[in-house]
Amino acid sequence: MHRRIPEETIIRLSYYLRVLIYLKEEERKELVSSSEIAHILKMSPHQLRKDLSYFGHFGKKGVGYSVSKLIQNLKEILGLNKKWYACVIGFGNLGKALSFYKGFKDQGIFIKVAFDVNPKKIKNYSGLKVYPIEKMEEIIKKEKIKIGIVTVPKDVAKEISNKLLKSGIKAIFNFAPIKLDLPKEIIFKNVDLSCQLAYLTYRLKLLE
Amino acid sequence: MHRRIPEETIIRLSYYLRVLIYLKEEERKELVSSSEIAHILKMSPHQLRKDLSYFGHFGKKGVGYSVSKLIQNLKEILGLNKKWYACVIGFGNLGKALSFYKGFKDQGIFIKVAFDVNPKKIKNYSGLKVYPIEKMEEIIKKEKIKIGIVTVPKDVAKEISNKLLKSGIKAIFNFAPIKLDLPKEIIFKNVDLSCQLAYLTYRLKLLE
Repeated sequence: MHRRIPEETIIRLSYYLRVLIYLKEEERKELVSSSEIAHILKMSPHQLRKDLSYFGHFGKKGVGYSVSKLIQNLKEILGLNKKWYACVIGFGNLGKALSFYKGFKDQGIFIKVAFDVNPKKIKNYSGLKVYPIEKMEEIIKKEKIKIGIVTVPKDVAKEISNKLLKSGIKAIFNFAPIKLDLPKEIIFKNVDLSCQLAYLTYRLKLLE
Repeated sequence: MHRRIPEETIIRLSYYLRVLIYLKEEERKELVSSSEIAHILKMSPHQLRKDLSYFGHFGKKGVGYSVSKLIQNLKEILGLNKKWYACVIGFGNLGKALSFYKGFKDQGIFIKVAFDVNPKKIKNYSGLKVYPIEKMEEIIKKEKIKIGIVTVPKDVAKEISNKLLKSGIKAIFNFAPIKLDLPKEIIFKNVDLSCQLAYLTYRLKLLE
């Protein structure tokens, strides 16, 4: 039985990992304190210690964390020692950008194929094969794909997510500007880029 | 003097606004309770009420919120009654996707121009003009652009952000996988798409 850990904590662990890898590879650091990591990320060391405390005791008081060990621990917690296969549905501008986004590999995520309705897009793009949407169920099963990245227009997003469910996908990362009604077993993340920008415009307004 | 409101609160306000617009336009609703909005977003009504309480009292106990009034209030809080001009720096796959991302307009953000180093990309793309990077300072000033959306590779992101500072930009939305060291006055948001995916792989691992 696992305690339910807040999503924000997991996302922050992933940021800590980035910083630790940087400290190891670029600055050859072996030990680091929670304050140092927190300072780089402009957050409170208290938050960092709280996030880590969900998973055990990693540092030594007065000494700090072993950089290499904490990297290993975080990779394990985040499931990065495994490979996850993903597909992109909707090969428009955003779909194309995500298909070739280099950062996913650091997360252990490999985009295997993409799908689109437009027959003109059904071909190979520097190693990535784009299939017609009708082949989705078949290919996802065959290629053991667990993650679907949805970038289709709003009006077809529901239909696509239903098809994804049937194909046995386990997780959906949705960029369509719509809330999808999915069964609880499906791991789900909605990303609305314009909502992310809301904080920027809010603070711009305060400057006026 | 403004109280410093948590970024998460502002982002959630933006989600509430989406739901309210949907309820008004699609369901012709005039009154709504905090529980109804919270249910659609799969969150707690308590959180919603807490978020709104930073800005005043909007609903009536036992009656709920006026949908139209709350839309107006949220738009004002979020600064959406204004137009904000933005530019995209780096016209690769991600830059192109963001340049034509329709959701930004709902946020009052209009991408006016883009910049790239590649001479082949310096042209018009269905109404959007791409300029050489050397013109950045000049064009940003001339076009009164306040927001810079950075999608350049890691190794040039620092240089670009320094140039943006000189051009008088007020806010930076950064997709480069790097933490930028910016002066406090600059409004800043780092988006790391692969860190957003961390929660998905974490939970996939728990399923095994």
